[in-house]
Amino acid sequence: MEDKSMQLWFSEAQTPFVDFSLKINKILYTGKSDYQRIDILESKEFGRVLTQNGQITLTEKDEFIYREMMVHVPLAVNPKIKKVLIIGAGDGGFIHDLLEYPNIEHIDLVESDPMIVEVCKKYLPEISAKLDDEKVTIYYEDALRFVRWKENEYDLILVDSVDPFGAGEILFTKEFYGNCYRALTDSGILINQHESPFYAEEAATVQTVHRRIVQTFPIVKIYQAHIPSYPSGHWLFGFASKKLHPTGDLKAENWLSLGLKTKYYNTRLHIGAFALPTYVEDLLKDVE
Amino acid sequence: MEDKSMQLWFSEAQTPFVDFSLKINKILYTGKSDYQRIDILESKEFGRVLTQNGQITLTEKDEFIYREMMVHVPLAVNPKIKKVLIIGAGDGGFIHDLLEYPNIEHIDLVESDPMIVEVCKKYLPEISAKLDDEKVTIYYEDALRFVRWKENEYDLILVDSVDPFGAGEILFTKEFYGNCYRALTDSGILINQHESPFYAEEAATVQTVHRRIVQTFPIVKIYQAHIPSYPSGHWLFGFASKKLHPTGDLKAENWLSLGLKTKYYNTRLHIGAFALPTYVEDLLKDVE
Repeated sequence: MEDKSMQLWFSEAQTPFVDFSLKINKILYTGKSDYQRIDILESKEFGRVLTQNGQITLTEKDEFIYREMMVHVPLAVNPKIKKVLIIGAGDGGFIHDLLEYPNIEHIDLVESDPMIVEVCKKYLPEISAKLDDEKVTIYYEDALRFVRWKENEYDLILVDSVDPFGAGEILFTKEFYGNCYRALTDSGILINQHESPFYAEEAATVQTVHRRIVQTFPIVKIYQAHIPSYPSGHWLFGFASKKLHPTGDLKAENWLSLGLKTKYYNTRLHIGAFALPTYVEDLLKDVE
Repeated sequence: MEDKSMQLWFSEAQTPFVDFSLKINKILYTGKSDYQRIDILESKEFGRVLTQNGQITLTEKDEFIYREMMVHVPLAVNPKIKKVLIIGAGDGGFIHDLLEYPNIEHIDLVESDPMIVEVCKKYLPEISAKLDDEKVTIYYEDALRFVRWKENEYDLILVDSVDPFGAGEILFTKEFYGNCYRALTDSGILINQHESPFYAEEAATVQTVHRRIVQTFPIVKIYQAHIPSYPSGHWLFGFASKKLHPTGDLKAENWLSLGLKTKYYNTRLHIGAFALPTYVEDLLKDVE
């Protein structure tokens, strides 16, 4: 029974002047690893919530949006993707969707913090269920070092760095994207979470990240999604590749023929997501 | 100088379990009309904020998104629109954008609450600047009664009802949409704010409204935008018309030839905005 005498709210400062707050039933887990503070909260509206250093990483209610837009966009463009590198994303959510594609042979996941994986396995079992699949290898390593020696090995790299100016800063450097470029095969694609264009501080991050990727890859296009639990709800992703175009090379009929069940992604939305608001286009053009 | 001893925050309950809070410099206005409580807040992040009964109606920082998506979508489909009816939207923001189109001859604005117009003129002068334009007539009347006797008169009706189950409930009835249909010319378009699909209570409203419009108009298509100050940030609009299709009849080159400056709308986004996430498609299909 709910204890009415206790009102528990979690608040995230989306900017110094904007708070997003969730009513919490209880705190299921609190821990501190070598890298960060990790919490699992049970919220009324968003189900279980994973936070890293007090910032929402994912919620059970809307993680499908981020996951589907990271995974299905590149796979619908190149259904022949065999080998995938995931950087970050220790919750394992991407793996479930990747393994639905019959051509996927192997997935390497590089996560610096083992505690994220442990905690997600315990408290988010549905999301992390496929972390133990035989096609998956987890490396608890520094991602920059991991990709430094890889060459022509991956058809797809998914970069899920949550914190561009904290522990994850090194993942937003020109060196890192250059190493990713080399690690990719000829038809390789890199998908990058690109932050939000709306609040000034994140818009500046969008520009920094975009400038570095544009300097490295010949094709770079940005797409967007609605993610209610992330600051402003307006989230961007970068599609960077050596030769495949995200909409021109979309193989919609092939994707439909796979019969995958999705809640957010579809092939019309795939094309629509690359049509950006004018102020976002301007933000990106400034650094192209 | 800012008084550091005073911390003022405005919180909106987006659901009973989700709060969205803005740091406030000061409360510029508080009033109570026959219809509602009206406040103007000066916020750190969103500039001035208009609230009605404690719910955000618009903010200076992101009102351009809602305004541009209500106005430019129908005008880019039918550049010959001459006469417009606006229901609600007493802040006058739409009028500025409408008057940029050379064919617009007259705009009727029906707003039940004169206090909204007065307060916006005083505290949001840039947004409401065109309320006094000679092409504009303001009627302080009940909107349902106003449209009841109109026939074949308007090329465009913009319905900006903020509160489908409070004072604005009457604007979401089948009778109201039927009257709008009759009030429209042969090529008439109705644009309706459609709420958000994400949280359960609003998703139910989306379905109710959608069912009623689909029963009335032969062409009904839903489009979306990112509006950070609205619940979930994911907002839907309904494009309902007698014969014009929102993307098939888009006259992109004509729109571009007008040279209008926009911050959110563009003709690629126009098409992209009609590509909806799968869960939203399913929500709408259920009642079509």
